[in-house]
Amino acid sequence: MKEKFYAYIQDLQDRITSKLEEIDGQAKFREDVWQRPEGGGGRTRVIENGKVFEKGGVNISAVHGKLPDTMQKMFGVGEADFFACGLSLVIHPESPMVPTVHANWRYFEMYGPDGEIVQQWFGGGQDLTPYYLFPEDAVHFHSVCKTVCDGHNPEFYPKYKKQCDDYFYNAHRGEARGIGGLFFDYLKATPEMSMEAWYDFVTDVGNSFLEAYAPIVERRKNLSYTPENRTWQEIRRGRYVEFNLVHDKGTLFGLKTNGRIESILMSLPPHVQWVYDHHPAPGSEEEKLLEVLKNPVSWV
Amino acid sequence: MKEKFYAYIQDLQDRITSKLEEIDGQAKFREDVWQRPEGGGGRTRVIENGKVFEKGGVNISAVHGKLPDTMQKMFGVGEADFFACGLSLVIHPESPMVPTVHANWRYFEMYGPDGEIVQQWFGGGQDLTPYYLFPEDAVHFHSVCKTVCDGHNPEFYPKYKKQCDDYFYNAHRGEARGIGGLFFDYLKATPEMSMEAWYDFVTDVGNSFLEAYAPIVERRKNLSYTPENRTWQEIRRGRYVEFNLVHDKGTLFGLKTNGRIESILMSLPPHVQWVYDHHPAPGSEEEKLLEVLKNPVSWV
Repeated sequence: MKEKFYAYIQDLQDRITSKLEEIDGQAKFREDVWQRPEGGGGRTRVIENGKVFEKGGVNISAVHGKLPDTMQKMFGVGEADFFACGLSLVIHPESPMVPTVHANWRYFEMYGPDGEIVQQWFGGGQDLTPYYLFPEDAVHFHSVCKTVCDGHNPEFYPKYKKQCDDYFYNAHRGEARGIGGLFFDYLKATPEMSMEAWYDFVTDVGNSFLEAYAPIVERRKNLSYTPENRTWQEIRRGRYVEFNLVHDKGTLFGLKTNGRIESILMSLPPHVQWVYDHHPAPGSEEEKLLEVLKNPVSWV
Repeated sequence: MKEKFYAYIQDLQDRITSKLEEIDGQAKFREDVWQRPEGGGGRTRVIENGKVFEKGGVNISAVHGKLPDTMQKMFGVGEADFFACGLSLVIHPESPMVPTVHANWRYFEMYGPDGEIVQQWFGGGQDLTPYYLFPEDAVHFHSVCKTVCDGHNPEFYPKYKKQCDDYFYNAHRGEARGIGGLFFDYLKATPEMSMEAWYDFVTDVGNSFLEAYAPIVERRKNLSYTPENRTWQEIRRGRYVEFNLVHDKGTLFGLKTNGRIESILMSLPPHVQWVYDHHPAPGSEEEKLLEVLKNPVSWV
């Protein structure tokens, strides 16, 4: 399974970076291949200062070795060997009219004393963070998420949509990071779902990413915007930073387990602002977005 | 003691904001007075878009009531009433040639079942975060810190200087946030130091703040700088955000105990950048700063 899934995310990384370069039409991803001293490594691909994409990363990694202390505590287990691989991406477009997107698909294995697999699971998801709300974009993104879920189980979409709303939540602000999508974790074998069935589900979600995101970028990338729109985007990007550094388990986990810092923090936006006690004007487009972030919507 | 110290920080807030307004020569602090639903409140003063100061806050608060769960766990105690007051400030100048400064002085009391004080302590300190290193500024700031400490005990400066270097450390980057200063906490009565003696020490440090910082601002505020200097400042401000949101106990504590978000996060810089895998040119001024942040210096 681990070879199969790692081959899948290598190919998916190629497909996603090719398509994003094509949409951008100007910038190319630069690639950094890195090794983890304790075992494994990764292939980080970053795009900066493009025509459409101001900063973004599409990274894969496959790491293995002794389970770090922090992970032992997290999973409530003792010493063990592990393997983990995944693709993680965050794309910050230049235009405030084009939403930021985040996605992640990952697979984890833990081994017993004789090298046998004692735990294995998939995790991941994809979610959208607009700065200006175009309801048809939200409906499109969630429709793609729902369609791919419904192909496996009609209960998946409502369940993983809710988990996404719950997870990407800036509790200290009382608002969601964005308009959600899908979030799932610890997908383990059950009588109904074998690991093979979960593999099919997770890779179907991965395959749906470009279909969910690319049309939105194409539709919005040439819209004009004002410096005020850009300021609003940079303030909202501050909330993105707050979520990733204060609440996101994956980020904090990486920082505390000697992960590759630059690959982890490539998720942070390029230009960001913090303005004291900022509130959008009543009835403005900016306020409409806040309303939706405070009260998650059923888009489909 | 609590009335005396709160009166002190009210006066200190006035002195500091007056002096900073005088230095800025253009912007004024705006004041927000707020109440805490569970007891107490504060007076937040924020300056934005000044001639010298791009964003800064000088805030006081005095809160009381039932000790929140998170604090009970932190202190290893059960239910109790508490009182806490303090002044907290962060100043982000516009010019990359003028350092950011942070300072804090606070007092805490915890009560037994009959309202008697069972615990009380002071905490605080002051520290400097330059973007370009002028060694004479670092020497000046630390000299003021040392002089005020030496007036009480010759062991204080080396001890609290080291605690400052240890505390304001971005472990995930392997570098200090800035060039340090003083940091002390849990200053409790001992045979050598009564609470009155600690009060004298902490207020002497508070009184030294303007002497430590103002001459540096005056000396550097009219220096010219390039857009490249400004980019470097914004990238370094990103490290400031990383420290405050990932490592700073005070910030995280405030976010998790329903503190006033805007007063807590006024510490975040106005304009910030994250650039993937940024490294200053060998031998540059930017690299010289990094060297000092990686290897703390004994300035006096």
